[in-house]
Amino acid sequence: MPASPIVNRRIVLAARPQGEPTAANFRLEEVPLPLPGPGQVLLRNRMLSLDPYMRGRMDEGRSYAPPVALGEVMEGRTVAEVLESHHPGFARGDWVFAPAGGWQTHAIVDGGTLNRKLDPNGQPPPSTALGVHGMPGFTAYAGLREIGRPQAGETLVVAAASGPVGATVAQLAKLQGLRVVAIAGGPEKVRYLREELQVDAALDHRSGDFAERLRAAVPDGIDVYFENVGGKVFDAVLPLLNDFARIPVCGTIATYNARGEVRPGPDRLPDFLSQILRQRLTVRGFIQRDFVRLYPEFLREMGQWLREGRIRYREDVVEGLENAPQGLIGLLRGDNFGKRLVRLDD
Amino acid sequence: MPASPIVNRRIVLAARPQGEPTAANFRLEEVPLPLPGPGQVLLRNRMLSLDPYMRGRMDEGRSYAPPVALGEVMEGRTVAEVLESHHPGFARGDWVFAPAGGWQTHAIVDGGTLNRKLDPNGQPPPSTALGVHGMPGFTAYAGLREIGRPQAGETLVVAAASGPVGATVAQLAKLQGLRVVAIAGGPEKVRYLREELQVDAALDHRSGDFAERLRAAVPDGIDVYFENVGGKVFDAVLPLLNDFARIPVCGTIATYNARGEVRPGPDRLPDFLSQILRQRLTVRGFIQRDFVRLYPEFLREMGQWLREGRIRYREDVVEGLENAPQGLIGLLRGDNFGKRLVRLDD
Repeated sequence: MPASPIVNRRIVLAARPQGEPTAANFRLEEVPLPLPGPGQVLLRNRMLSLDPYMRGRMDEGRSYAPPVALGEVMEGRTVAEVLESHHPGFARGDWVFAPAGGWQTHAIVDGGTLNRKLDPNGQPPPSTALGVHGMPGFTAYAGLREIGRPQAGETLVVAAASGPVGATVAQLAKLQGLRVVAIAGGPEKVRYLREELQVDAALDHRSGDFAERLRAAVPDGIDVYFENVGGKVFDAVLPLLNDFARIPVCGTIATYNARGEVRPGPDRLPDFLSQILRQRLTVRGFIQRDFVRLYPEFLREMGQWLREGRIRYREDVVEGLENAPQGLIGLLRGDNFGKRLVRLDD
Repeated sequence: MPASPIVNRRIVLAARPQGEPTAANFRLEEVPLPLPGPGQVLLRNRMLSLDPYMRGRMDEGRSYAPPVALGEVMEGRTVAEVLESHHPGFARGDWVFAPAGGWQTHAIVDGGTLNRKLDPNGQPPPSTALGVHGMPGFTAYAGLREIGRPQAGETLVVAAASGPVGATVAQLAKLQGLRVVAIAGGPEKVRYLREELQVDAALDHRSGDFAERLRAAVPDGIDVYFENVGGKVFDAVLPLLNDFARIPVCGTIATYNARGEVRPGPDRLPDFLSQILRQRLTVRGFIQRDFVRLYPEFLREMGQWLREGRIRYREDVVEGLENAPQGLIGLLRGDNFGKRLVRLDD
């Protein structure tokens, strides 16, 4: 097969991390691209999404998706432009959402894996297909609707609330008439939550009296805790839950780097089970694709809310593929302020 | 008000237990009964139900029902005969299910609290209103149906399986075409599960290699774990759960005597949350009255299954009110073999 003239720059998994990932876990490579075969499409990736779930893909072992193999391109969703198409559904110049675009400048994918064209000048803009109008937004929408089951007048708590999942949860719950307490790290994010997203209370989890502030912010207790961080926020939420509270669990980012680590006692698991019984709690894990049947409705509704300005979003853009590893490492520490993306323009 | 000639023998809560209850936590009293007032009914309790939830009522503090006050009659459901009625719905000689009959020979209750007459010679017999055809059976029925959501071909695990909840869960799941692994303590109970209830595998949780035996008994993993004991059975189940497994939590009897006790580490709660996410588990606490809308259907269906012999049950009868405290203490240790009742005949 003759080589195409294009050189693909890509980042592969060089080694599995122990705890926090480091730069040494990644390797930047330049490799010539083969030509796309029948039914395939050659993509120029424009934007790469960085997401907490990627930490899980770097580990071996059982999870909801297989790990990235050593030496393979890191997985990631992209917004991409079609450079060459051997598939009847796509033409050069089309913009698409590429579920398996990967951490690379170019990708060759089967046209059948691309089911969403994007308008490069549309509203909402194409980058939202990686955030509020894509997987993170849908995670918020589906988890809240199917597990959180919010009722007007109830109280919802969500952490990582300046990130794309948390911010969408907070705003959807406000639209539905809930009291919303949103948590983030640092005064700038807290100000954003209060002033831009207009939640009822915004709290900094780094403040020394965080647990007391949370208690004061939920005078009627907590009916829905949307769990996307774990760790000390979860610990502070537990004693404040109301009977019949719902806990959709879509992430425990605080523990992603600590898998397999042995934590000091006491063992709180038996008391948690006992609390689940006494308070008739529902704790349910999910990932967004479990609710894929709702996706068309989500795209339609969220597109409308975004155009109307009823749902707002914020993007945090890292420039250049070579900075993607640091972008992910920082994301896992919570240093993003909004949906973290990597711009892959030349 | 003139005293009635009847002396009521009753057992009151004398002191709150520390850990396991002892005889000193109870006191037998004899008190003259007042006459029933307008709308009231004087009952002669015939059978008293002993149930694990009673341990919770002996503690102060937050639970799904208020505690029994010191000096008050211990709560309990009874099957009773009407001695005297000032309520139009009942006449002397009627048999009834008394939700608040209590640990006593007699009770005066509002007729409006009695909504189920029993046939003393009927099939199923009236004592089943305290077990398989009452609260424990309904706990099994509702939790399995609403949370367990069993599908034919799946695998279900249940412990305390010779008791009224566990035995009913096991048999209902068999009727629905599941592979059923039932757990109990001691060879006699295990033989009963295998030979009488005809489960697919029956295991003794006291055997030293219990966890390995459980693993071998669930070659396709566990889809439903009906949690009614907690402790080491739960620990052995955790690594064997399938993705999307459901865990209805109706009791954690292994920890009832240990509330507030600090357990040695490691702290397994963060890993449990992570597992809930990775495997998309549903963990939900309930008590049977949360599903009260299903009760009429339960009474009809279960009555039919019992008459047809499709659901079997076993009773473990303690003789005499004075033996009720030891009956409960033993129940919490798992020394009952079937539904524990106290016969209150003269």
